[in-house]
Amino acid sequence: MINSMILDLNRNGSAIRAMFEEGTKMAKEFGRENVYDYSLGNPSVVPPAEIRETLLDIVAHEDENVLHGYMNNAGFEDVRASIADHLNKEFGTAFSAKNILMTVGAAGGLNVILKTLVNPGDEVITFAPFFGEYRNYVRNADGVLVIAATDPDTFLPVPEVLASVITPKTKALIVNTPNNPTGVVYSEELIVKIADVLRAKEAEYGTSIYLIADEPYRELVYDGATVPYLTKYYHNTVVGYSYSKSLSLPGERIGYLVLPDELDDADEIIPGAAAANRVLGFVNAPSLIQKVVGRCQDAKVDVEIYNRNRELLYGKLTEYGFSCIKPQGAFYLFVKAPNGDDKAFVAAAKKYHILMVAGTGFGGPGYVRLAYCVSYDMIERSLPGFKALAEEYGLR
Amino acid sequence: MINSMILDLNRNGSAIRAMFEEGTKMAKEFGRENVYDYSLGNPSVVPPAEIRETLLDIVAHEDENVLHGYMNNAGFEDVRASIADHLNKEFGTAFSAKNILMTVGAAGGLNVILKTLVNPGDEVITFAPFFGEYRNYVRNADGVLVIAATDPDTFLPVPEVLASVITPKTKALIVNTPNNPTGVVYSEELIVKIADVLRAKEAEYGTSIYLIADEPYRELVYDGATVPYLTKYYHNTVVGYSYSKSLSLPGERIGYLVLPDELDDADEIIPGAAAANRVLGFVNAPSLIQKVVGRCQDAKVDVEIYNRNRELLYGKLTEYGFSCIKPQGAFYLFVKAPNGDDKAFVAAAKKYHILMVAGTGFGGPGYVRLAYCVSYDMIERSLPGFKALAEEYGLR
Repeated sequence: MINSMILDLNRNGSAIRAMFEEGTKMAKEFGRENVYDYSLGNPSVVPPAEIRETLLDIVAHEDENVLHGYMNNAGFEDVRASIADHLNKEFGTAFSAKNILMTVGAAGGLNVILKTLVNPGDEVITFAPFFGEYRNYVRNADGVLVIAATDPDTFLPVPEVLASVITPKTKALIVNTPNNPTGVVYSEELIVKIADVLRAKEAEYGTSIYLIADEPYRELVYDGATVPYLTKYYHNTVVGYSYSKSLSLPGERIGYLVLPDELDDADEIIPGAAAANRVLGFVNAPSLIQKVVGRCQDAKVDVEIYNRNRELLYGKLTEYGFSCIKPQGAFYLFVKAPNGDDKAFVAAAKKYHILMVAGTGFGGPGYVRLAYCVSYDMIERSLPGFKALAEEYGLR
Repeated sequence: MINSMILDLNRNGSAIRAMFEEGTKMAKEFGRENVYDYSLGNPSVVPPAEIRETLLDIVAHEDENVLHGYMNNAGFEDVRASIADHLNKEFGTAFSAKNILMTVGAAGGLNVILKTLVNPGDEVITFAPFFGEYRNYVRNADGVLVIAATDPDTFLPVPEVLASVITPKTKALIVNTPNNPTGVVYSEELIVKIADVLRAKEAEYGTSIYLIADEPYRELVYDGATVPYLTKYYHNTVVGYSYSKSLSLPGERIGYLVLPDELDDADEIIPGAAAANRVLGFVNAPSLIQKVVGRCQDAKVDVEIYNRNRELLYGKLTEYGFSCIKPQGAFYLFVKAPNGDDKAFVAAAKKYHILMVAGTGFGGPGYVRLAYCVSYDMIERSLPGFKALAEEYGLR
């Protein structure tokens, strides 16, 4: 008998990935242009031109044994310094290379920091709805995921609810703003309140509660929204970042953790996280792409392309009678299933070759997630299907 | 309190990595040319010319959203097909793309297959001496590492010893040939005997016992030695491969698992391993370098460079009176500590600016490991130090 968790994943695995695979199959059957796949957060916007230019320059000119070789498990020193400088300029922080740990994407980074912090049975809180993989990552570290409800009208955390779920066993709180799957962005005011709750509970229980900011969507914001840098509001903050979305490099698995000196036990956490990177089998973030992002700190994909998608899809879906919060960030719409049954809604949409993911996997039953990191053209082609779907549900 | 295993790693972490960091420090103090660092298996031979050429070609011409995008968690289909074809041509096997899972190096691959196979408390056997990270990888999967002794004169497995440590809880045996740290290569005759033991024990206990072949050094062999392909000798074989050494790309974290159709529960293991790749946070092997190795299946570093190093270092050390098996593969010498105290030997060598790693961490106390993936010139410059060390120990 193979591992029982893996058997379970084979039966009830990632709804996102299952939809993605289904989309590939349907594209073969009906033609790619007749399938409207909103399942996977795979960036559609091309990487900034600097990525290709920098890759070509580095590959042509740098010492290959350095470029493709082992380095410290934390990453190349020059790359880490470059990232620290960029953060300091952008947010007025005071990091140096030693506060940056290069990781195999945000997924690698989250696993590394959870392994570093969590002892078996420790509790890790997150707010629903949330990226479903947090369940696996917390379990990998033998922790217990605790899900805190949010305001049902805004999907924003409620400080009193957070306070009510913190116990002496709480080791960390994972926040994700801009949020996957809802697209909401936490205001500075809300962040101050969350930090106040954490500080009060640390004092009450005499514990350290780490705030883990999962920030792959930091740069993807609209309507002038700002995303406060959380290390400035709370001493025990670790930031997990990824270039998957900001530079459209999700396949490259490149990101970093920020481990401030202000963390309780920073002198154990900083080397400990590098050791975790090694023993979990990541060893180090891929080397060539480390060098590339180190030199492309000011590059950014064209967010206006996602914004156009957002405006079109949000505008049309609400016009058709669907109900949805207008997202301020990321590239997802979290749409209410008209009669509250998200799985039935997903199944109904499939008839019109529209692929979306049920909210249940995100801890948000009754909703579906649409990833609008797709072509504008695909959205346009999918609109008659959405209209028919609205009619089927009697929304108009 | 942060994770207790991580705290322990901070105190008693990787001896290899500690030496590597020490080497970097000593190089700053004494000058790089005056420090003889044999600690880390970081390839010194330049990658084959095809790597740079292929990188430049792919980056210049391929669709960037494909090249840097998400794909199936198992890797790009075309890359997996190319690897299957190569293996079939080389070894007369009959793999297809579905039998290949692209991984974040061999370390990622081992963690993926252990997570897929092992239930908590299952036993995983390996032969001493062994790559010390196996301890962490087996622990990550909540397994129990069982260490089987080898013949003390040859470091080769003894079938009877293997049979004696297999229990109904044995889930897997990890073999590593060519071996790190000893450089020994298992003969076909020995492999047949190991396979016979495994089959007999599977029948005796009514269990499946998986043979995991960790093969990062497959191509690094000398004196015409051959390395049999283990799937041909035993049905329940999973091969873990890495391009770290064969193409000098250790920093890129690129390798694969071979998951044959003949495996017991192959229909669960093949999708399960892809799911494990995702939930452990690897998600997929880095995308650009996947495409590169897919097109460089016939490329190989110049092994003769390592062979020259081997001949020089082995020849001189034995001339000076040190005792060591002549390695047939990999790029390590496993040298006897003259008075049996490996840690004292490592400390004594440091006086001559020679960095080597104590065998204790490899389950081989009384020996030290020297990684000769260094420049020929460095070996030459280190020889007076070794000579003095031999004199200090009264070997000549």
